[in-house]
Amino acid sequence: MTEGFDIGARAKARCDLLGVPPYSEVDGQLTRRFLTPAHAAALSALEDWMRQAGMSVRRDAAANLIGRYEGEATGAKALIIGSHIDSVRNGGRYDGPLGVMLGIDVVEALHRAGRRLPFAVEVIAFGDEEGSRFPASMSCSRAIAGTLDASALEMRDAEGVSVAEALAAFGGDPAGIASAARKPEEVLAFLEAHIEQGPVLEAEGLALGVVTAIAAQKRIMVKIVGTAGHAGTTPMALRKDPGPAAAECLLALERICRAGTDGLVGTVGRITALPGAFNVIPGAVEFSMDIRAETSATRDAAVDAICAEIHAIATARDLKAEIHLMQALAESPCDPSLIGILEEALSDLSLPARRLPSGAGHDAMVMADLCPTAMLFIRCEGGISHNPAEAVTEADCALAARAMLTFIDKLERRERA
Amino acid sequence: MTEGFDIGARAKARCDLLGVPPYSEVDGQLTRRFLTPAHAAALSALEDWMRQAGMSVRRDAAANLIGRYEGEATGAKALIIGSHIDSVRNGGRYDGPLGVMLGIDVVEALHRAGRRLPFAVEVIAFGDEEGSRFPASMSCSRAIAGTLDASALEMRDAEGVSVAEALAAFGGDPAGIASAARKPEEVLAFLEAHIEQGPVLEAEGLALGVVTAIAAQKRIMVKIVGTAGHAGTTPMALRKDPGPAAAECLLALERICRAGTDGLVGTVGRITALPGAFNVIPGAVEFSMDIRAETSATRDAAVDAICAEIHAIATARDLKAEIHLMQALAESPCDPSLIGILEEALSDLSLPARRLPSGAGHDAMVMADLCPTAMLFIRCEGGISHNPAEAVTEADCALAARAMLTFIDKLERRERA
Repeated sequence: MTEGFDIGARAKARCDLLGVPPYSEVDGQLTRRFLTPAHAAALSALEDWMRQAGMSVRRDAAANLIGRYEGEATGAKALIIGSHIDSVRNGGRYDGPLGVMLGIDVVEALHRAGRRLPFAVEVIAFGDEEGSRFPASMSCSRAIAGTLDASALEMRDAEGVSVAEALAAFGGDPAGIASAARKPEEVLAFLEAHIEQGPVLEAEGLALGVVTAIAAQKRIMVKIVGTAGHAGTTPMALRKDPGPAAAECLLALERICRAGTDGLVGTVGRITALPGAFNVIPGAVEFSMDIRAETSATRDAAVDAICAEIHAIATARDLKAEIHLMQALAESPCDPSLIGILEEALSDLSLPARRLPSGAGHDAMVMADLCPTAMLFIRCEGGISHNPAEAVTEADCALAARAMLTFIDKLERRERA
Repeated sequence: MTEGFDIGARAKARCDLLGVPPYSEVDGQLTRRFLTPAHAAALSALEDWMRQAGMSVRRDAAANLIGRYEGEATGAKALIIGSHIDSVRNGGRYDGPLGVMLGIDVVEALHRAGRRLPFAVEVIAFGDEEGSRFPASMSCSRAIAGTLDASALEMRDAEGVSVAEALAAFGGDPAGIASAARKPEEVLAFLEAHIEQGPVLEAEGLALGVVTAIAAQKRIMVKIVGTAGHAGTTPMALRKDPGPAAAECLLALERICRAGTDGLVGTVGRITALPGAFNVIPGAVEFSMDIRAETSATRDAAVDAICAEIHAIATARDLKAEIHLMQALAESPCDPSLIGILEEALSDLSLPARRLPSGAGHDAMVMADLCPTAMLFIRCEGGISHNPAEAVTEADCALAARAMLTFIDKLERRERA
């Protein structure tokens, strides 16, 4: 790896290297949570790799690691390439880190070619996207976008350690966290490469995809209330069983979402019968609904249709339906101009420029508050993620790195024009 | 209460008296579990009441309290009237005790009238029907029927105390438990009066019902296995979600049981999605099925039809269905001759002799291994049981006592014939 290097393939290899201790908290699996010794070990390795790639390196107050490859003029606006370096517990090696490693490979290619651009290129390793240690997520990208709520520093992990305490012990600066915020005038754009975490690209035989938007999402809890009773002594005709009503609701949700467009998906991830005994007709059944689509309008039309069906189902059975909205997130559209450039880059590589929404949240949705964003999706095996079985191919990683370099060429052309 | 007494109404009042400490383990609710001080206090009160009613009283090795009102000849066969004196946690006052108190009232009426019968009448307060302390139920009636498995004495409660230890401390005789078994030639019949614990009598405006059989029951666990996935990134068309399949199964069960006869009922009391996260398509959904009917044949035909539908639903969605039988109990028919006598008794009181199966289990199903059995159901408010809201009326209790006395008159006539 002293002379040339297999761009992209090396990014994958570096993700694999960081898949075990000391870069994981746990032997035999990858668990790398925010502000742990495993996180520190990973940043130390990344720092070396960023320097080898020709970048100057610094850490900000929020423990983000930032490598900067200066442009033609010192202090030029930066194209930021980034993703997160933390993982879920017993997670995969590529969800997050691959986007950071590809950024380093791309910069090293520029550096080896001796190229300077009309803008700087920065690579950022965000420390906390998953929220697997503290009860919130994306706090590092929020610090950079200037949207971090001060209360986030007071959150505590399962051991009672606050973000502020852990950050101070890590060498961060909780009191000066505001200094991590970047000014919009310093930033040209944000590009995040990430595994798809879904099966669409694989199903269509495509290596890469262009993200149009991070989906709008609503999280809703539904409770169907009936009357509990003895499973043996209550004839069918005298029951007010919320179970079959909930069953009809699940099927209504599936039918409406299957008929939808704009990437509409709906999921019932939790369902519980109360009190939950073998021989008791439930008094209530609770279930969760996670509804997402490329636009809030599509999502809301589906939510409205599903909720209307739920009320109709409950009424027809003389039951009560309680529906509680737990969370509503608007869609985060990627920048149309950057989408166009990324599509052209794929076309230049003779790859179909498949557009798709991201059903999952990413740091890019936070960075959209700061600057125009673009996201490149990389095919992953079986769509599996948040799982040790997460897998990507070297060939796809190499294509991703080349697509990112071509994107940079085209961005350079636009900026010089 | 020195001269006459309101037969039946007093039985209800005694249940109410035993609804609070020291007859309950917990202030403000009724919790009276097997072999607790609350159980001892209840037996002490019952002993006095049995003696006042003209009975000789003893406790057997299994802590059953047995009052005996001798017949014309000492050592005659006995009509046993009994039910259980234990409760579920935070239960109702009448589920069990009412049958014991009615037995005492009926004997006291015979005693006051100076009547001796060609058979003895015994009243038994079984100590453990609910299984609310140790992980099995009906151990006291099993000891009397001679069907108690020796291993039952080794079961332990949540504090690690075994039945044998608790029974010895209570004054029972675990080593001599076999002595509690009654010989068939000592027993004429078993009569249990019990609240219906269901809504049928109330819905039909009836005070009493004649039980035909204790229902056959199967407990089954079903697991529908699909593929877990990200709720945001997996398009509807690429999902293998076991949730909607389970929903179809619940509706199939409801449809089949609603169309059934012979008291067929089916209940899904538990349902769980795994792993059970808001944003994860379940990899599996598990649910319980409790299927009961008056006959095993009806029950099994329904179970077969439901299981065939479950497999068809899973196959149609390319999922796997795993079905596990957890428990199968055959029906316990009441004795046809005793049913006839009980029906005549109700007719004599100008009450419609409504026949109905018992969907719930009772000590009578255990006693059926020893002797012919009969059961009288008493209307309860809203069909509610296992709940502090359990309620009966004085008038219904009085009718029940009179029906039991009339049953005894008719049994006397049969025995003398």
